[in-house]
Formats: sequence, structure tokens, C-alpha cells
Amino acid sequence: MTTTLIRHGRIVTAVDDYHADLLLEDGKIAAIGRHLQVGPDVRVIDASGLIVFPGGVDVHTHLENTFGESTTCDDFESGTKSAAFGGTTTVIDFAFQNQNTSPLDAIARAQSKAAVGASIDYGFHVIVTHVDDAVLGDMRHAIRHEGVSSFKMFMAYPGTVMVDDAAIFRSMRMVGEHGGMIALHAENGTVIDLLIKEALAQGHTSPKYHALTRPSILEGEATHRGIKLAELAQAPVYFVHLSAKEALAHVIEARDAGIPVFAETCPHYLFFDESVYDSDDFSLAKYVMSPPLRSREAQDALWTALKTDDLQLVSTDHCPFCMKEGHMGKVRQKMHGKDVFSRIPNGAPGLETRMTVIYDGGVRTGRISINRFVELTATAPAKLFGLFPQKGTIAVGSDADVVLFDPQAEHVISAHTHHSHCDYSLFEGHHVHGKVRKVFSRGDLIVDGDQWHGTPGRGRFLRRGEVGGY
Amino acid sequence: MTTTLIRHGRIVTAVDDYHADLLLEDGKIAAIGRHLQVGPDVRVIDASGLIVFPGGVDVHTHLENTFGESTTCDDFESGTKSAAFGGTTTVIDFAFQNQNTSPLDAIARAQSKAAVGASIDYGFHVIVTHVDDAVLGDMRHAIRHEGVSSFKMFMAYPGTVMVDDAAIFRSMRMVGEHGGMIALHAENGTVIDLLIKEALAQGHTSPKYHALTRPSILEGEATHRGIKLAELAQAPVYFVHLSAKEALAHVIEARDAGIPVFAETCPHYLFFDESVYDSDDFSLAKYVMSPPLRSREAQDALWTALKTDDLQLVSTDHCPFCMKEGHMGKVRQKMHGKDVFSRIPNGAPGLETRMTVIYDGGVRTGRISINRFVELTATAPAKLFGLFPQKGTIAVGSDADVVLFDPQAEHVISAHTHHSHCDYSLFEGHHVHGKVRKVFSRGDLIVDGDQWHGTPGRGRFLRRGEVGGY
Amino acid sequence: MTTTLIRHGRIVTAVDDYHADLLLEDGKIAAIGRHLQVGPDVRVIDASGLIVFPGGVDVHTHLENTFGESTTCDDFESGTKSAAFGGTTTVIDFAFQNQNTSPLDAIARAQSKAAVGASIDYGFHVIVTHVDDAVLGDMRHAIRHEGVSSFKMFMAYPGTVMVDDAAIFRSMRMVGEHGGMIALHAENGTVIDLLIKEALAQGHTSPKYHALTRPSILEGEATHRGIKLAELAQAPVYFVHLSAKEALAHVIEARDAGIPVFAETCPHYLFFDESVYDSDDFSLAKYVMSPPLRSREAQDALWTALKTDDLQLVSTDHCPFCMKEGHMGKVRQKMHGKDVFSRIPNGAPGLETRMTVIYDGGVRTGRISINRFVELTATAPAKLFGLFPQKGTIAVGSDADVVLFDPQAEHVISAHTHHSHCDYSLFEGHHVHGKVRKVFSRGDLIVDGDQWHGTPGRGRFLRRGEVGGY
Amino acid sequence: MTTTLIRHGRIVTAVDDYHADLLLEDGKIAAIGRHLQVGPDVRVIDASGLIVFPGGVDVHTHLENTFGESTTCDDFESGTKSAAFGGTTTVIDFAFQNQNTSPLDAIARAQSKAAVGASIDYGFHVIVTHVDDAVLGDMRHAIRHEGVSSFKMFMAYPGTVMVDDAAIFRSMRMVGEHGGMIALHAENGTVIDLLIKEALAQGHTSPKYHALTRPSILEGEATHRGIKLAELAQAPVYFVHLSAKEALAHVIEARDAGIPVFAETCPHYLFFDESVYDSDDFSLAKYVMSPPLRSREAQDALWTALKTDDLQLVSTDHCPFCMKEGHMGKVRQKMHGKDVFSRIPNGAPGLETRMTVIYDGGVRTGRISINRFVELTATAPAKLFGLFPQKGTIAVGSDADVVLFDPQAEHVISAHTHHSHCDYSLFEGHHVHGKVRKVFSRGDLIVDGDQWHGTPGRGRFLRRGEVGGY
Ligand SMILES: [Zn+2]
Ligand SMILES: [Zn+2]
Ligand SMILES: [Zn+2]
Ligand SMILES: [Zn+2]
Ligand SMILES: [Zn+2]
Ligand SMILES: [Zn+2]
Ligand SMILES: [Zn+2]
Ligand SMILES: [Zn+2]
Repeated sequence: MTTTLIRHGRIVTAVDDYHADLLLEDGKIAAIGRHLQVGPDVRVIDASGLIVFPGGVDVHTHLENTFGESTTCDDFESGTKSAAFGGTTTVIDFAFQNQNTSPLDAIARAQSKAAVGASIDYGFHVIVTHVDDAVLGDMRHAIRHEGVSSFKMFMAYPGTVMVDDAAIFRSMRMVGEHGGMIALHAENGTVIDLLIKEALAQGHTSPKYHALTRPSILEGEATHRGIKLAELAQAPVYFVHLSAKEALAHVIEARDAGIPVFAETCPHYLFFDESVYDSDDFSLAKYVMSPPLRSREAQDALWTALKTDDLQLVSTDHCPFCMKEGHMGKVRQKMHGKDVFSRIPNGAPGLETRMTVIYDGGVRTGRISINRFVELTATAPAKLFGLFPQKGTIAVGSDADVVLFDPQAEHVISAHTHHSHCDYSLFEGHHVHGKVRKVFSRGDLIVDGDQWHGTPGRGRFLRRGEVGGY
Repeated sequence: MTTTLIRHGRIVTAVDDYHADLLLEDGKIAAIGRHLQVGPDVRVIDASGLIVFPGGVDVHTHLENTFGESTTCDDFESGTKSAAFGGTTTVIDFAFQNQNTSPLDAIARAQSKAAVGASIDYGFHVIVTHVDDAVLGDMRHAIRHEGVSSFKMFMAYPGTVMVDDAAIFRSMRMVGEHGGMIALHAENGTVIDLLIKEALAQGHTSPKYHALTRPSILEGEATHRGIKLAELAQAPVYFVHLSAKEALAHVIEARDAGIPVFAETCPHYLFFDESVYDSDDFSLAKYVMSPPLRSREAQDALWTALKTDDLQLVSTDHCPFCMKEGHMGKVRQKMHGKDVFSRIPNGAPGLETRMTVIYDGGVRTGRISINRFVELTATAPAKLFGLFPQKGTIAVGSDADVVLFDPQAEHVISAHTHHSHCDYSLFEGHHVHGKVRKVFSRGDLIVDGDQWHGTPGRGRFLRRGEVGGY
Repeated sequence: MTTTLIRHGRIVTAVDDYHADLLLEDGKIAAIGRHLQVGPDVRVIDASGLIVFPGGVDVHTHLENTFGESTTCDDFESGTKSAAFGGTTTVIDFAFQNQNTSPLDAIARAQSKAAVGASIDYGFHVIVTHVDDAVLGDMRHAIRHEGVSSFKMFMAYPGTVMVDDAAIFRSMRMVGEHGGMIALHAENGTVIDLLIKEALAQGHTSPKYHALTRPSILEGEATHRGIKLAELAQAPVYFVHLSAKEALAHVIEARDAGIPVFAETCPHYLFFDESVYDSDDFSLAKYVMSPPLRSREAQDALWTALKTDDLQLVSTDHCPFCMKEGHMGKVRQKMHGKDVFSRIPNGAPGLETRMTVIYDGGVRTGRISINRFVELTATAPAKLFGLFPQKGTIAVGSDADVVLFDPQAEHVISAHTHHSHCDYSLFEGHHVHGKVRKVFSRGDLIVDGDQWHGTPGRGRFLRRGEVGGY
Repeated sequence: MTTTLIRHGRIVTAVDDYHADLLLEDGKIAAIGRHLQVGPDVRVIDASGLIVFPGGVDVHTHLENTFGESTTCDDFESGTKSAAFGGTTTVIDFAFQNQNTSPLDAIARAQSKAAVGASIDYGFHVIVTHVDDAVLGDMRHAIRHEGVSSFKMFMAYPGTVMVDDAAIFRSMRMVGEHGGMIALHAENGTVIDLLIKEALAQGHTSPKYHALTRPSILEGEATHRGIKLAELAQAPVYFVHLSAKEALAHVIEARDAGIPVFAETCPHYLFFDESVYDSDDFSLAKYVMSPPLRSREAQDALWTALKTDDLQLVSTDHCPFCMKEGHMGKVRQKMHGKDVFSRIPNGAPGLETRMTVIYDGGVRTGRISINRFVELTATAPAKLFGLFPQKGTIAVGSDADVVLFDPQAEHVISAHTHHSHCDYSLFEGHHVHGKVRKVFSRGDLIVDGDQWHGTPGRGRFLRRGEVGGY
């Protein structure tokens, strides 16, 4: 394993910001100092003018995930390569509990898929769709012995993945006692389901009805409910893809009271808003994700909350489906819902653009500090989900997951140049300042400019510790 | 200047927590690494079993400060020595604008006093008691050219230091434009003054009436007013010694809205409550500080707020007056108000105990994490008041202000063993876990166990940068 | 029909308070004046020293209602007599939709029962347990043509009466458009059901576990959810038996925002608290109602809310079951749950004591004004549920439902002297000031001291108009 | 004194709404009934198609009031005539304490002026500008013996009428103990004064700067402060002319908590907004009142608050100054500030239009119910300020102050037809539905269509009872 010295970089962590040399040895950060001396066998990289960030940690991705009849178009190989090019060196993906099977089976299945393809390190949340005593026992086992300490449950999608409040409450209470955490998709699925059926019955089939049938008040309601269940269970709770102002208000109120409530938002909620839905065109299918895009007012509130720590992290919910049916051999993608919006698979790509757009739209514009950028994209995710200090920071002893970032470099985002299999990018044509130049994963230089040096299978499964202790 | 290698310590910053060696060279942190190699001329200190913290930063101290007829019993010499023994290596004290003189004179006077006595580094806030165009010009000059970027104003003490809302507003607006910040003592002085006069008229002269005439609702009122003035002025605002639940609620509400409002609380509000005032005994004079101690409920809320970042730092408001008249030659101390509580000089010591009691009562009990401890006592104060990254963290290039702290060592706090001139400690007899073992200031080992190696005058004036940018 | 002149009474309405004579003619209030002149055929009653109130309106009673295997022990005959002796001259009871039958059938069945027994006027809410297009059509018909404009739905009791959020939302939206209103029993039934099963599995069978398995946070959650469903449906909503402070907070917040949210509380929540549950004794079964009694703090908040109009009315939720099995031939009463708390029928009597205890505990103590007393017990219920101005006030043209109340008379409440079939009173032994002396229903003197002049069947079904227009 | 029978009217009070005949005898309401029989000497008026309202009560008028160098253009004669034509039969005006004189002198002076000119009944609030022990004693005397139970204090206008927080607090505490109440003009005068001076120094002299120098945040601040002072004093408090959303929010929060806080708003805040200030024209002087007009959003919030009882009444703050200098001999009117906005006397007319515009813009549009209209304009003012039941309702025994109102009649508001001396109306050209047809004051028909039958001096001073007991 090559030892590397990164010279003269500007090292930025969630709290610090200084110039120093950085020594990567045996896959770890070995030393940080002014003018470190190294031998001739050490690879020396000049990082003058570059920022040295800890590699990004994205805790919400869907690689090779199947929802209903559709499977996301990125597998672990393309997805983790795409992540790496975007400066993300760790993902937490999902292991899906098929009805009436064990969460442990789900973990095993997910691991076998990822082991083949992943070029960066990864962990899993289990999506729990059925709860009984045996399942709860297996969840406890997963926390204690399998390094899987978080579980996602759905308050939406009745008939497929939605579980009832009692199942959520039981799970929260159990995992809360054992150092785990429940992540919730919070939307009132029962009412949404009615609204969808009514829309279809009225002949409203175009993609914009996806948004119109998922009003923000129903995300707010479910978020409040999730918080109250967690409060009763005396357990922490995590809200994925928070988008609605109403939901945010409940999170803020709970956090003010010292209740351990956490939430992420996603780049698309920070840069796009519901005004895009103003057409019946099928091209809007690219904006069909759940929750849908919200108001400008909500967008502003999300940015404020990122600053004030009312939101703790930015994840992608990378859940890509191609717009063109058959692209790269993928079928039942967005066009699956051509005639009826409810069959459009929900989700959008984002893994490769997260770091860049948050830097450009957050740090450069002054909305968040550069330290907060690192906290939101790397440190907080690692701390909250039991990966710290192995991941998420630049400190002696941590994994040498390091990104060299050029804050001056300008480029235009495009699906033509990204590494995801997805045939579109929400940020197509966005001109941004800041570019990932080099990426190290455990000391290996896997991205070097446009060159890819990663290999499928080099990524390792991360056994995570207790969550929610952030 | 001796180069020092601190081996095998557990280095803790506001975000990180790892084991490494730490090299202090030329007064700076030069390197951090596993197994750093050094030459024979380097002093090597084994920190096994010890925590390596950044030196504490206390932004609210009153050394050689005169209020009315009384002067605090610690001068810069005793005060900074006391600070150092408590693990604090930077203080921000006060320069007092005498009525109708320039803030610049105040700074010069304060500097000349501190230059003689201080053994650790220091900065100043100017206490502004009169505002006109010339004063505003001088304040701007102080920010831009003198390294003094914060100014304290009083909403209490009419007839002496209280200024009116317009003066506060004008000052906020001006300093906000130039990277400065107003710190407020927020109590409604006019009403308190009435309550005091009424109490005295009724023959209520004992110390407990100090507390009874300063109800928490009046701190809440003034805090709200201060926030609104800041909001109108579009400037940041800082509240010193926040103690009341009502005041905290306003700070929380403002921060939720993204308004740049900051506040400190003090150790005495975190460990004592108003129940101590339940007697007419003069010994209660030691608890005569402003604001007074509050309810248990308020205390709990303060701890929660420290955790949730609704309070950003813990300062001491070290404002010591001896209980025994003539102790160490100090006169007009607490006994000055023997016959009438309103003449008791307000304040209590705390500089030496801050780090220890917050560690013991906060970290050890699980109320706050060890990273948050560092943030509250060193990093946030440094960032908020323009001292970062020179002070407040352990990172390459920062000043080598470092504390070796033994988390296992137990000891009993006492005025008999502290280094302040004050003849009492609020924490007298408190048994705590955790003890400062060694303290470095710019690489100099100034505290080594019970040994004092600091010298008066070695401390340097800190020219501070922009504030409020935290 | 006898014409009656009530002389020299103190007439109190929701707004007025004056002395005058009151003429009741043809079942209506015909005139109010100083020194009204009447002929010799007019019955003249001297009301000197008495208060003349409008007859009480109780919109939440359960007469001859069957829940599971148990039927309330008061039928329309005993129940309405009991009401009249307590100063209540109008009740709104429930018509129960058996699964998959029409609400219209429910109304017809309820009417046929009441027609035989009722001695005062009555209306119905339909309890809707199943919603589909046909049911919605029948609900609309009920509002428009049957004088039934309110419908109760349960967020608790899964497997029997609970409906899902979509059913509630659809119903709200439809009735909101047609001048009707949904009344909600707001508790999160799914989680409560789990808690009950767990309690039983742990061998916790005594009545106090009824309370322990229905935490107030779950009433708060459901109340919030109900409000949000109503907001989305743009319809008014009414919360029955609000008891929890958390629930009240949500109602207050919604009302502050101008959202048409209404709520009642019940006398038992105003006079008793959870401290009664501190035993495993079966005698606590008399306190088994849903929601259970709450904290003292909640009780205080309810009283404040009655004053500030955050709660709009006081109803009884009169739902009596005897403690002694077989009393008056009633079976499957409270003893039904002797071995397992979950089989205790939920509910308590209260119809006869409502006016007296609210007067004594509210008006006499100064918690609410005497006008507010009338508003809470008569005017607001009548206005909110479409009975005004026929019922709920003393004004020319209104029904001559009038109570002569002696505010000085003291008495002790007891099941031995009340007229309900129930063998206990929650207020047994309470010494109160204020007693109903005479009660007129549509001009008929049905209660005269201890004498009963009412007759079963004289009560009339009230076709109600639009609701929620208060 | 003529006895009058009003036949077939629709009588509307704060709670009732019914058709009946109304007998006015000896200046009182003697009887209400269906088909009242009267002798031939009784004047019978047919009110078919008309609404019979209680006469309006306006608790905020400035007749013959002098502020600085300017005196309002309506004296008691023109002002009360104008009131009567608008359906208002009671006013509470102001008695002004000249610096260092007794409030009792102020009352005597005001009484002597009103006694000559008033044609309707009137009371006074004392404007207290200086507080000491003697003044407090006289205030107590005024409550107990002079029928003056409310006192207005200013948080604005430093150097003239502003008093400090201690003076307000002392006054609140004293009057609160004796059944009185402090009314506050809540704006932060110190900061406003600075903003005015700065605006003038920058050459901003046109009327719109009146609005720009009185930002709503400063009304919010002062309102919060006033509430906290009242809370500490355990006394009720009343806010005059509440206009800002921020101020309203504080009132709502206090009322939710059960604190006795009351507030009025004025018609101009309900119908106009700050958009009128968008010019440098001097004609904007007619909109120069304090506080100035606010945002549309604030306007909506005020309407909602009128509905939800967060605001309790609508008063006019009738404070008229002519636009044309010398009109009707009045000088130093609006033109006084032609060259500098700060010299424009603050205020606008409104007494004659209050009832009509609130009916038209509130009741007819469905924003408030017709009962609420009566409550806001007559009943609540009377109750809150100790005039009930003599004034403010239609009930047997109350003063026969009655308005016959034609809800169908349409007319256009104009200064050409109003009875105030003021040469403009804010509502000039507004086309409204609803017109006052006849007005009775204590049984005297003083307004009959366009005919004026009132006489100066017939109005009586009203000795008011306890306030705040609403
Ligand atoms: Zn989701
Ligand atoms: Zn997802
Ligand atoms: Zn202070
Ligand atoms: Zn201080
Ligand atoms: Zn119920
Ligand atoms: Zn019920
Ligand atoms: Zn005013
Ligand atoms: Zn005024």
C-alpha cells in the first residue's frame, strides 16, 4: 500500500481550517504537520491551492434497490464509482426485508451484492416491512453482532412497505434500548393513497399529479406523529428526506426541547421547488421523487435549518431511474408510468453532485460556513450512524478517505460526463465553482482528475457502532 | 523556546477524539501524528491516560475592574494565574469607557494594566457607557485597527452604566456593519431600580433581597428587547450571563428563525439555584451576582440548551469580591453592603473552576459530550470573538495552548487551594473528578501539577478579528 | 299549554345579566320586561333570589348505547329525567352505524328508541364506522334532510370502531362542504392496543392499567393528526372529551391561526386527576373512561382554556355503567372487566351533575364568569351544533327551556338521590353550592323541586341545521 | 320623556339574534317581546327590515385634545354628533395630566369641556405623564370615587408624554389592585426618536417617513414589554391601536396562557395598508397616525384575531386634524408639518364610520359574525371599561341606547356629508352596504335619518366601575 504525503493543502474539518501536510499510511491518516519529512518511497502530492476535505459520507442511497417492478439503474459498481467522482467515499445503502423474512437475510443479501461491485466502503440500513417478536430479536442481533444499527420504516405506501404506528413504536423502543435508531419516511400514506386514487379516477395521469397528491401538510403530520412515537418510546428518531416546512417546524420544536430528533434533507429540495411541476409534460417524471419538491419558502427554511443545526445532514436519496426506457439495458424505469403517474418509479440521481452543489450553493454563497459543509456532508453522517471516527473527519488514526477539492475550478454539471448509469441529472447545465480533483479511499488514490483507479469489490462492509449518539 | 512532544495523549477537539503525539514548536502546534520522531533536545512528556484539550477561552472576566466604589479582588496577575491553574489560557476582560471619554482611551488603560500582570494571553471588550458620533467613530476604529471588536452595554444599573435603547441600537447597527458585536447585560434596570428602592424603604436590607428584586421576568423582557433591537439593526447580538428560562426561550426562538443571536451562561447558574437565598444571613452575599441564581427548572433548561446549541458557550463572569473585608488588603468588598444589600458589589469568582466543574458536572454525568465540552469552553468562544484558529482548538498552526487533563483524578475544590485572591469559592467542598495536570501557553509549560512557571507580563494582548461569524 | 310568568328573576345569558320578568307562552319565550302585566290564567312563579338560566345543552351523551357486549345503564327515560333534574333540557346522543349499514338506518333506529323514552328534546350524531361512496351519500342526505349534521369517528379502538385517516379525511371534506362536522375521539388506537396487549401479557389486569396504557401523548398525537386532516379537508373539526395538555396545545395553536377547530372537555377532567389510579383496587373501575383522568397540570390548563375560549364547551360524555352487576337488572357492566381491565366498559355518569359542578367549581370559585358558564353549558353547544336560537339562550322566540337555579342552596351530591340508573356518582359526597329548583322544557314545568312532572315520550327530535358556524 | 315602541325589528346582541318589539321607557329598555301592547301616548316606530343594535361604544377618541401645538379639530359638540350619526352612543375620551399636576385636575378639566358640548354619554381615561406617590394616590381616588378607572400611558414620544418602565409598572400594580387598568400606547419611543432625527438629518421630510421611522418591530417590542410589566405587576393591561403582527403575536401568546391582556385595533388598520405610503406627496399626511399603517399580512392577521377574540374590540382612535389649514378656523393642523413630517399632528378621523365599515367589511363579507360585530363595537368595550350593563347591550334595564340599522341601504362615504369638522375621511368614496337610520340615546331619538335632534350638553358623564373584568 502506497504511503502518500499531501503537501500544502488547506485542511478543513467540521471545526478546523488550516494549512498543513497530511501523511496517509497503511490506509490511515498517520500525521499532520507543517513540513512533514518523508522518505523517497513516499508519493508526494502537491495540494497547493486545494482544499483537503474528509471524504463525503452519504447515508441515503439506493443502489440495485428494487421497488415494486422497478430497479434503480445504478448498481454498486456504477453507483460507488459515481459517488467517488463526487467526493463521497462512504455510502449507507438499504437491505430490504421481504415480507415475513428476517432482517438478517436482508443484510446477507445486500452484502453479497455490494461485495462484488462496491469500490468504496459501505454499510446498510435495513428496511423493515414487518415486525413481530422474531423480527425484533433479529434487529437486536443485527445491532449487536452485524454492525447494522439503523432501520428504516415507511409511514407511506400502504399495501407494500407501510407499517402501522404500533410496529414503528415497538421497533423504536427496542432499538432505542440497544443503541440503534429508526429512520422514518414520514408521509401519511393512507390519505395520499386516497388522493392518488381520486386523481386517477378523475383522469389526472401526468407526472405533476405525483406532487399534487402528496401535500406538505401530510409530511408535517407524519413527522409529528413519528416524533411523538419516539418520545413515547424514549428513543432517537431520524427523518429521511425532510422537505416540508411543516415537518421542519416539528423537528425544530422537538430539538428545542432536547428530544433526540434528527433529520436530513436532500440537494434537490435545496435547489429546486414546486414551480417545476407547472406542466402536464411527461418530462417532469425526472422530478418524481417522494416527497415531491416543495415551495420556495420551504426551501429557504431548509437552508436556514442547515445553518442552525435544526437539520443535521444532507444526504442524496440517490434513487436513479432512467428517463429513456432501455438506457444501458434498464427497463421499467421512468417510462413505466407514462400513462399513469402512480407507476413512475420514485426517485432521482444525486450521489455524484451532492458535495459540489452544496459547496457551490451553500459555502460559496455564504449560506453555510465551510466547516458546516464538512459537518453536513461527512462528519455528522458518520457520527450519527456509528462510523466515527473511522469516517467523517481528518484526524490522526481515521481512515485515509480524503478529497482534494479545487474551489476555483468551474465546470458545468451534465449527465454526459457523470459516472452514474442514469441518463439525466437534475442539475444538468448548472455552472458551478468547485471541483473534486483527487479522491483517496483508505489511502488508495481512486479518483485522479478524470481517471478512475477504483476497482469493483475493493469497498468494504462497515460494521457500524451505536447510532444517534451525535 | 523549548520544543515539546506530548506523547500518547487522547486529543479531544470540538469534533475529534483520537490518540496521537503532539509536537509544540515555536509556540505553535507543529505536528500531530502517530509515533512522531523527535531529536534529543525535545522535551518529551508522556500523556498516557490524559486528555489533551485546547486551552480554555473565557470571554467574560473582570480583573482589576472597578464598579462604583469597589474593585474586584483579582488583578491580572492573580487572575490569569488562577485561570491557568484551571486550564484557561485566554481571557477577554473589559476596558471601561468612563463617561464622556473615548473607548480608545479605555482600551489603552486596560492594556497598560494587563501588560504588567497577565501571564496568559488576553483581549478586551469595551464597556460602552455613552454613545455619540465621536464614540461610534472610535468604536469603528477599535474594530478595524485595535483588535477590539466587541462592546458591552448595560440595560441595567440606571444612573451609572445603563444606556438607553437608542444608544444600543445605534451601536449595534454600526458595529454590525464593521464586523463587531454588542454584548448585552440584559435586565430591565429601571424596574429593578424601583424594586430595590421599595425593598429598602420597607427595611429589607439582607442579601437575599438582591435576588428578590431581580425577577427572571425582567431578564426575559430585556433579552427580548435586545434581540429585537439587533434584528432591526441587522446585527448580531451576544447575551452575557444568561440565567432565566424566559430569556433562554427568546434566544431559542430567535435562533430557530436564523437570527444571529448568541448567549453564554455561567457555571454558577448551572450548579446552584435560588433555594440558597432562603435566609437573611449575610453569608449569602457570596451569591450576590447579577442576574441572581434562578429556579431549578431554569437550571435544567440551561443544561439542555448547552447540549442543543441554544447556548453557545460557558463563561465565568469571574467578578470576585472577598467576603472578609481587608483580605489581602482588599477593601470595600462584600462587607461594603453589610447594612444594605444594594451596596454589596455584585459578582463571584469562577475562573479557576470553570473547566473542571463543567467537565465533572457535564461530561462525566452525560449531559454533554466531551467534544461539546471543548466547543463550549474553548472553540466557540474563540470563534465567536475573533480569536480562531489562533486559539480554541488543537490544529496545526494554532497557538500551542494545551491542557493535559486527568479525567480520573479526584479532588475537592476549595478557596484554600485556589490561586485567586478571592477568599471563597462557590464550589467550596465540591468533590469532582478530573484535574488539570499541565498547562502550556504558546508552548511554555506554565502549570505543572502544583508548580507555577508562569510570569506576570508574559501574556500578550490579542488583536481580535471579526466576531459573530461563528 | 300553560302560560307562565317568572317574576323577579336574575336572567343570565352568555352575555347579559339583569333582573326582569319572563313570560313563557306556547312553549316559547314571549316577553321579557320590568313588571310584565299578565291575566289571571297565567301561572306566576316568583323567582326572587334565583338565577334564570337557559336550559343546559349536553351534546355528548350515551343513552341505551351498546359498546361491544355492554349497554349503558341509562335508557332515554332515566337518562333524560336525570338530565332534567340537573338543569339540562337538550341532549345530543348517538346513532350507531353498524358495519356496512347506512347512517340513515342508524338514525331511524336511534329515533325509535328515543321517541319512546325521552322527556326532553334530543338530537343525534351518527357514529360512522365505515365509509364508502354510498355512506358518504347517506351522510349528505342526513345533513340536508334528516337534521343530523354531525358525525363522530374514532381514531381509537381498532378492530371495532376505529376508522383510518383516509376515511376521516373523506368524511370531513364531504360534510364540510355541506354544513356538517366530524367529531373525533382522538387517541392513537393502534399504539394503545399494543400497550394494552403488552400490559395483559405481563399480567397487569387491574383497572389502573386502563389509564397507564392510554398515555396523554397519544391523545396529543391523534388530536394533531385530526387537526391536520381537517385543515387539508378545509372543514371544521370537533374534538370530544379533550383531556390531555398536549391535545389542548394543538387546539390552541390551530385556533390562534384561525382554523375552525373546536373542542369540549368533561367535568371529570376538571375535577379529578390521575392520582386516583394509585391502587390495584377494582373500585377504580368507576374511573375507567377514555381518555383516562390526566395530570393536575392538565386540569389547570383545561380550566384556563375554558376561560380563554380555547375550549368551547363542557359536555358530559355521560356513559354510565353500574359498579354492581345486576343493579336494576343491568348486566355486563363494570364487573365485566373484573379479571381484565380491557373488558371494563369505558365511561362514567355525569348528566345530572354537569351544571351544578361547573357552577360551583367554576363560577363560585371565580375561574369563569357566570356568562361564560351559560356559554359553555348551553349557548355554545347550541350554536356549534345547529340548535341556536331554538335552544341555548333566553331570548324572545326561543324555546322556553328555562332553569331556575338557587345559587345559595347547598347540597351534597349522591347516587342515592340522583335520577340516573347508575349506582355511583363520581362526585359522591361533594358538597356544592347551587341547586336546580325548577326546570321548564318548552314551557312545561317538568322539574319542580324534587317533583318530576316530565313524561317519557314528550321529548322531541331536534332537526339540526348547519354546524360549526359558531 | 317619550316612551317608544320599536316594532318588528331584528334585535342583535353579542349573542342573540331574534325578531321582537322593544319598549324604551324612562331612558331604559323596559321590555322585549312578541307583539307588545302599548297605549296611544307611546311613539311607535316600525323597524321592519331593520336591525336593532345596541349603540356603539368607542373607547378611544380624542375630542378637543391638544398634542404639542395642535388641537384636534373636533370638539365635544361636533365629535359626539359625528359619533351619533355613525351609530355610536358612548365615547371614552381622554383627560390629560399636565406634567406635575394631579390626575384629578385633569378629570375636572375634561369634564367641564365635555359637559358643555357632548350630546351623547361619555367617560374618560386619564393620560398619565408623571407618576409619584401623590399621583398614585389620586389615581386610586379616581377609580374609587370619580368613576375613572383606566389610565393611558405612553411608551413613545420621549420628552413629552413618554414615561419609563418603572412608572408604568408602579401604576399597573396600583390600579390592578383597585379595579383599574393601564392602557398603553406601545411603541419603543427612544429608538423611533433616533430614527426620526436620522431621517430628518438625511433630508427626508415628507410624510411617508413618518411610517418608515416607526417599524412594526418596535411596536412588537413595546407590546411584549408592556405585557411583561403587567405580568410582573399581576395586573390587566390594555393595548390601544394595535396594528403590528409582531404585537399581535405577543398578545395571542399571553392570552393563551390566561394572562389578562386585552387589545383594540382600529378601522384604518383593517382597511388600509402601508402601500399608501409609496410617494413623497404631502397628501399622505392624512395617513399620518401612530402607529402607521402596516403590511397586508398584518391586516389579515388582525381580521383573524377579531374573529378568534385575540383582539377584543375595535375603537377608532378618532384624532382628527384637517388637511386644509384654517378649515373651520382650525390651525396648526396637518399642514403644520408641511416641511417636516415630524411636525404633522398624528391621527385621523373615524368616529362616524366605525360601525358602518366594520359591518360592511366584516359582517357582510363573512369575516365576522353579526354577533361578533356587536361584541367588538359595543359589548366588549362596555364590559372591559366598566360600563356594562348600562351600556353595550340590549337587555331589560340597560340604557335605551339603540341603533336602527338598515343592512340593505347602500351609500358612499364622504367628508362632504359627514358631521365631523374634519375636512377629509380616510374612507372617502368607499361604497358600503348598511346605514344607520335612527339612533336613540337614553330613549331620546337624537338621529333620525339625516335629521339631528341631539343637543350639546345632553350627554352625561359616565362613572365607570371596575375594568378588565371582561
Ligand atoms: Zn423515502
Ligand atoms: Zn430513499
Ligand atoms: Zn452583567
Ligand atoms: Zn460581568
Ligand atoms: Zn370517546
Ligand atoms: Zn363518548
Ligand atoms: Zn396612541
Ligand atoms: Zn389615540
